[in-house]
Amino acid sequence: MSTSPESVAPKPSDQLSELLARIQPADAGAMARAAERQAQLTKPAGALGELEVLSVRLAGVFGTERPAPQGAAVLVAAGDHGVAAEGVSAYPPEVTPAMVANFLADTPAGPGGAAVNALARALDAKVYVLDAGVGAELPQHPALFRAAVRPGTRNLRVEAAMTREETLHLILAGAALAQRAIDEGADFVVPGEMGIGNTTPAAALTARLLGLDPADVTGRGTGVDDERLAHKVAVVREALARTDVTGPLDVLTEFGGYEIAAMLGMMLGAAARRRTVVLDGFVEGSAALVGVALAPALRDYLFPAGECAERGHAAQLAHLGLKPMFQLGLRLGEGTGGVLALPLLRGAAATLREMRTFAEAAVPGGSA
Amino acid sequence: MSTSPESVAPKPSDQLSELLARIQPADAGAMARAAERQAQLTKPAGALGELEVLSVRLAGVFGTERPAPQGAAVLVAAGDHGVAAEGVSAYPPEVTPAMVANFLADTPAGPGGAAVNALARALDAKVYVLDAGVGAELPQHPALFRAAVRPGTRNLRVEAAMTREETLHLILAGAALAQRAIDEGADFVVPGEMGIGNTTPAAALTARLLGLDPADVTGRGTGVDDERLAHKVAVVREALARTDVTGPLDVLTEFGGYEIAAMLGMMLGAAARRRTVVLDGFVEGSAALVGVALAPALRDYLFPAGECAERGHAAQLAHLGLKPMFQLGLRLGEGTGGVLALPLLRGAAATLREMRTFAEAAVPGGSA
Repeated sequence: MSTSPESVAPKPSDQLSELLARIQPADAGAMARAAERQAQLTKPAGALGELEVLSVRLAGVFGTERPAPQGAAVLVAAGDHGVAAEGVSAYPPEVTPAMVANFLADTPAGPGGAAVNALARALDAKVYVLDAGVGAELPQHPALFRAAVRPGTRNLRVEAAMTREETLHLILAGAALAQRAIDEGADFVVPGEMGIGNTTPAAALTARLLGLDPADVTGRGTGVDDERLAHKVAVVREALARTDVTGPLDVLTEFGGYEIAAMLGMMLGAAARRRTVVLDGFVEGSAALVGVALAPALRDYLFPAGECAERGHAAQLAHLGLKPMFQLGLRLGEGTGGVLALPLLRGAAATLREMRTFAEAAVPGGSA
Repeated sequence: MSTSPESVAPKPSDQLSELLARIQPADAGAMARAAERQAQLTKPAGALGELEVLSVRLAGVFGTERPAPQGAAVLVAAGDHGVAAEGVSAYPPEVTPAMVANFLADTPAGPGGAAVNALARALDAKVYVLDAGVGAELPQHPALFRAAVRPGTRNLRVEAAMTREETLHLILAGAALAQRAIDEGADFVVPGEMGIGNTTPAAALTARLLGLDPADVTGRGTGVDDERLAHKVAVVREALARTDVTGPLDVLTEFGGYEIAAMLGMMLGAAARRRTVVLDGFVEGSAALVGVALAPALRDYLFPAGECAERGHAAQLAHLGLKPMFQLGLRLGEGTGGVLALPLLRGAAATLREMRTFAEAAVPGGSA
């Protein structure tokens, strides 16, 4: 899996540099034309609220004041975490491979029996699953892509969770999967994750990158009790005390995890192709923090779905300067919130694309 | 249009009584089975947040723990208001018929050039338009249904906006259109409205039915300035001072309007057929207040979409004891917020219907 120095392919670090260089700011001209058009559409100015803001941002992503995004893909990266041995989750690590099998299972309703599958079927998104480093053998399946270099990260409390080489490998694998989904029709890319223990590295990443105390960004994940939460905060605190790195790739390498690196790659890959990244919850947000540190223009492509119930998500969104679309108290991951947000974005684009102007419709009061 | 006492058809008041009697509470058994099933699905209990609550409510509406709602219809009732002569809106009454024409216009994207049309196309809802009492001739169109008895209500500031006979006629017309939409495949019914001036009767209805001061429930509608808002509050205050009726049908008759009565009928008609009513904004909310006063079980069928920007909407939702799904600052009407909420409800039903249980998926930790 690893790329040796003798490889004839470009070095991973060069591939990443090239990827980052391709991420350009959103099209300011298209956004200006979209804002002007929104003001002329047959409704009181501003009456569609945040939907208007979203529609203008979509115009910037797609470079047209009449954006027509079509397909959507949710890319679920799965990985295990050495830190799970510290007892930071309410669930055992065996849940990670079991849930991957669930994502791929045949069910009476169609492929996949998890929440993300049900939502993706209902809301018109394709599901891709990436083994980013799951701690067990996984079944062969046409929707399962493989990028694992190790069955789970090292324990971030006591050592670096990943090597720099692993980090680069997973970022590029995530980017490649996003490219594939885009080639197969996705205009919306929804990174999602499954990995028992992964809110712990996400908390460490968020604390270090935003300069916040671990207690302020460490939450209950899938549902730990008060005692385990206190222990989880202590584990994050020890990890932060262990290393003083601040560079985004160094921080990601130190704390992990594999699926977070893969989701970062998906975001970079989608933005490089000028597609919309729909941002699910806290773990996705930690990847986004690394991403905007590497390529500030990535922000223009990020559309936060819901504000998730995990502590620290609000701080991530405040740093990104982006508003979530809903507050439904989701805390599942898998990209579920991102899939739920797709119709709101499709609707926002449709108003900008398909509504008539006051002049076209001969409705009085366009300047009211 | 009016039904004379000599008519052989049942009297409108008897038809309404029969309609109200058909509105039964949601299926408590199905809700209990749905809640039990949600707790066994492959996710931490509660991790889908409000989506789980919505899914259980949908189970109650459709009488099954695996609800499979399909089609959706947005029924836009349009009417004019005598009180518009008082200058309570930022727009002239001519906008009402012009927007109805816009709802029905041929456009390059398909039928209809208004926000509700663009959203309905994007999110898979059929649009029906009802002339509930527009103050101008309207074009013939297969999607335009007619129930108008008068080109706009009387001025609620100085006299009763409607007669009791008109009120009953519009309620039954709205119910009939909902029945038709259901017969044509709608499991979700979204009442929507267009009527310059209609936040004024909605404010009067809300103030009287909830016992609130007009200043607390009267908002800017499509965007009046401070001076016009103060005048609008004064108009509502005069209307309330003019009559002390408190019965729901009396209050509706006194303040209007025709499209509000029609939306009330749509809600009652949908609930009588055990379909979901997706509740858009403040004007729809005022119809819902009348509805739950007439038939308390109607509440079980109401699903508020977004919290709209109009002052007084929050008080309506608090009275109904229902939470909105999003806060996007919409204040357009037309049923636009209701259409945007459809995918969230479809998604909620899909999780309950299609996810596997921990046992089915052999995922460890079901009792965690």
